[in-house]
Amino acid sequence: MDDDVQLLDTTLRDGEQAPGVSLSPEQKAEIASLLDEAGVSVIEAGSACTGPGERRTMDRVTDLDLDATVTSFTRGVQHDIDLALDVDVDGVHIVVPSSDRHVEDKVGTTKEGVLESTAELVEYATDHDLWVEVIGEDGSRADLDFLEEIMVAGMDAGADRFAFADTVGHTSPEHAYEAVSRLSQHGPVSTHTHDDLGLAVTNALASIAAGADLVHATVNGIGERAGNVALEEVAIALWHNYDVETVDTEQLYRLSSLVADATGIVLPPNKAVSGDNAFAHESGIHTDGMLKDERMYEPYAPEAVGRERRLVLGKHAGRAGVEAALAEHDVTVEDDDLAEIVAKVKEIGERGRRVTDTDLLAITEDVTGRDRERNVELLDLTAASGNGTPAASVRLRVGDDERTASGTGSGPVDAAMKAVREALRNVEFRLDEYHVDAITGGTDAVVTVDVTLRVGDRTASVAASDADITQASVEAIVDGLDRLLPADDPTGVPADD
Amino acid sequence: MDDDVQLLDTTLRDGEQAPGVSLSPEQKAEIASLLDEAGVSVIEAGSACTGPGERRTMDRVTDLDLDATVTSFTRGVQHDIDLALDVDVDGVHIVVPSSDRHVEDKVGTTKEGVLESTAELVEYATDHDLWVEVIGEDGSRADLDFLEEIMVAGMDAGADRFAFADTVGHTSPEHAYEAVSRLSQHGPVSTHTHDDLGLAVTNALASIAAGADLVHATVNGIGERAGNVALEEVAIALWHNYDVETVDTEQLYRLSSLVADATGIVLPPNKAVSGDNAFAHESGIHTDGMLKDERMYEPYAPEAVGRERRLVLGKHAGRAGVEAALAEHDVTVEDDDLAEIVAKVKEIGERGRRVTDTDLLAITEDVTGRDRERNVELLDLTAASGNGTPAASVRLRVGDDERTASGTGSGPVDAAMKAVREALRNVEFRLDEYHVDAITGGTDAVVTVDVTLRVGDRTASVAASDADITQASVEAIVDGLDRLLPADDPTGVPADD
Repeated sequence: MDDDVQLLDTTLRDGEQAPGVSLSPEQKAEIASLLDEAGVSVIEAGSACTGPGERRTMDRVTDLDLDATVTSFTRGVQHDIDLALDVDVDGVHIVVPSSDRHVEDKVGTTKEGVLESTAELVEYATDHDLWVEVIGEDGSRADLDFLEEIMVAGMDAGADRFAFADTVGHTSPEHAYEAVSRLSQHGPVSTHTHDDLGLAVTNALASIAAGADLVHATVNGIGERAGNVALEEVAIALWHNYDVETVDTEQLYRLSSLVADATGIVLPPNKAVSGDNAFAHESGIHTDGMLKDERMYEPYAPEAVGRERRLVLGKHAGRAGVEAALAEHDVTVEDDDLAEIVAKVKEIGERGRRVTDTDLLAITEDVTGRDRERNVELLDLTAASGNGTPAASVRLRVGDDERTASGTGSGPVDAAMKAVREALRNVEFRLDEYHVDAITGGTDAVVTVDVTLRVGDRTASVAASDADITQASVEAIVDGLDRLLPADDPTGVPADD
Repeated sequence: MDDDVQLLDTTLRDGEQAPGVSLSPEQKAEIASLLDEAGVSVIEAGSACTGPGERRTMDRVTDLDLDATVTSFTRGVQHDIDLALDVDVDGVHIVVPSSDRHVEDKVGTTKEGVLESTAELVEYATDHDLWVEVIGEDGSRADLDFLEEIMVAGMDAGADRFAFADTVGHTSPEHAYEAVSRLSQHGPVSTHTHDDLGLAVTNALASIAAGADLVHATVNGIGERAGNVALEEVAIALWHNYDVETVDTEQLYRLSSLVADATGIVLPPNKAVSGDNAFAHESGIHTDGMLKDERMYEPYAPEAVGRERRLVLGKHAGRAGVEAALAEHDVTVEDDDLAEIVAKVKEIGERGRRVTDTDLLAITEDVTGRDRERNVELLDLTAASGNGTPAASVRLRVGDDERTASGTGSGPVDAAMKAVREALRNVEFRLDEYHVDAITGGTDAVVTVDVTLRVGDRTASVAASDADITQASVEAIVDGLDRLLPADDPTGVPADD
């Protein structure tokens, strides 16, 4: 591997062409600054020909006076180069058609026409002191002889380099290797790969092996269709496997997060380098291994990309793991409680949820609080709703009494709340706060309800979780009352009244 | 490339080890059936040693009597093989430590010990008529001489094959090539790759080039940390670039969708093969090209993986594009209305959202004030929940039919959702997103539910508000279906089937 491999980031141009992505000037400037800080060599800031809005944005980037070479995409027409000069970029990517499909059908020219205009455009751009890369669009489907001819025409006219472009994500590593090997006899070669076949990284590495020394990439691999090769994956693979440092890898996670936030394109949990689970360890076998040796199940330390390792509790949780997690919060529990906590963690895990620290602490509170004798307890709940009037009934144990009551309301939760009020009609309490966290996932997602109840001057804030929002709401309310009502006479009005 | 390359799917084992994933027996059986239908050769159904729940699930899969070889993961102990025999699998993967780190630090044995127990375990398994693959865990960090010794010990004892495992996603294609080249001198070799460096596909292809003929993969690349190599990417790359048919590629999108639904692990829009944008074209230049020649910006037709091409409107939208999109739905509008619709489309695009067909129709309806006749309508809804099993019924008008159905679920909303599914049981739709904004105020606060529904490649995003969360959820779902189901035959399977 060539030690001099560099990265060109095109998040702000090819990345922004992804459907549904639109970056503001501020966002583009922020991303460009962080790319520069990370040490990216070339930043393609946009296409100056797109319009005045795009040019204002590109002005913002060139005004930053970055160390990186800042460039503009230009179509194969002189006017585009003029527009690029207007925004004061350091260089341009002149895109010319190279496959028959693009030469004849899309642009409607001839091969001779392409060679002539390539030479003219490159001369024009270099005359204006621009760094110039010629890109043969759809190069992976082009005749290799013709691709070489375009490169030679460009280099003879003064271009700095030529890019082998797998525009539609079509090529194999064998073909990329052959093409770049031939092209690199004529000067420096870049590689531009797309992920339609899942081969973006494969073809980038094959190109580098064949002599390419500049890799076009986007942060998080965003871009049209299946996107471009992911900058963070190329960077970490080159660093880990070939000792080639292209950027400060410790900035990769920050970059990834910034671009995910700005574009709204989510990262799947299993995304290499930056996904939520990339350094999370749940399964029993693996976490045991991790406790013995951090590198046991990791190729490199998460700190290398600016992250931290996470041990996640879930369906494989064991006593040791839960105890260790609680110890991090200075919580120690009795053996019996620990067993119950582990069981609850596993139960949540089996329903397909990761158990966070907060979940764990809530469960622990729940379990250890149960040592205390309850004053008020929910024995059963029934709720019905639909087109008629929503109705609910509850059966509560209040001290030594059992109370059954019903209520109607605007929905099942409201009806159940009225039933609880009816069952405890001699207790004056207020619902100071009722809050349900946003629910995302599916209709069977676990819902967390937070309530703050007040009896006189005393308040209790309680949370309860269940897949059934009515059940969770009533449990939270009853738990709150249980904490607030006096143990000696829970059925009566509290002592301070 | 070897024409005989086959795929082993380990979604149900290595995939399910991803944090936060837990598949029910029904889900595992459904996934296994579809894998078998697609032509996957080996299905690793789970780890019989995990517990009785896992074994019941594996029983469900072996009871299906699939064409595929159904296997169990087993640790290097005889008891695990016994448990695998209990669930009646066709074969086992016997995992033995191979790197120094795993041999000495994790398992606490010696290399001689590993070789001895490998031979013993393989003999035991083959004596019980099991198909046997030996996996050298952490093989990519193992001494290659020792890895060969393990393979030879296994093969001599009767194993069918050996797997080169890049357990921690650490290796380079050069090393994978060298290792598999050496191992394949001793018999058939499988390859098991992880994506921590973004190299899962690269290393799988390097292994195949070196002689591996069975690729371990998971649907959507789910799995621990950054996950395993994605089955759909290996399959499409082998088919497109090497004419190697491993599975029926037209099933890939269905498989991807099924696993995304079952695991709750979202697919990013730029996911190769199955992401929302994989065959979507938005940017001006590209959609022009697409109108001239479908293959202009696509490596292969979307139909090859069971999908359809989508021309997406967004910030680059113009009158012609919007008019063409409306014409596809037989909608014509006045010039003034068209200008207003284009403005609204661009506005949504500039806020970074894709404008789907359904969005476009909703905007048009809004602008023209024309009421479209509804295909699907909610006539009534009843939901009951509490300590028993939550239940719900719905009555829907679907075209000229009236359908009544019931369902049970984890809560009233989930039960109502099941009832809707039952009422429309001949329509395949997915709930891509279900989101409830945080509820604050009181138990009678109005709740807003946002859903995104999908029928085939078409999606509709709808919101509904009500004081009753069940009512709001069902209304949103029914509204979405109303927009997605064809007016001429809403009760049937969509026209594209």
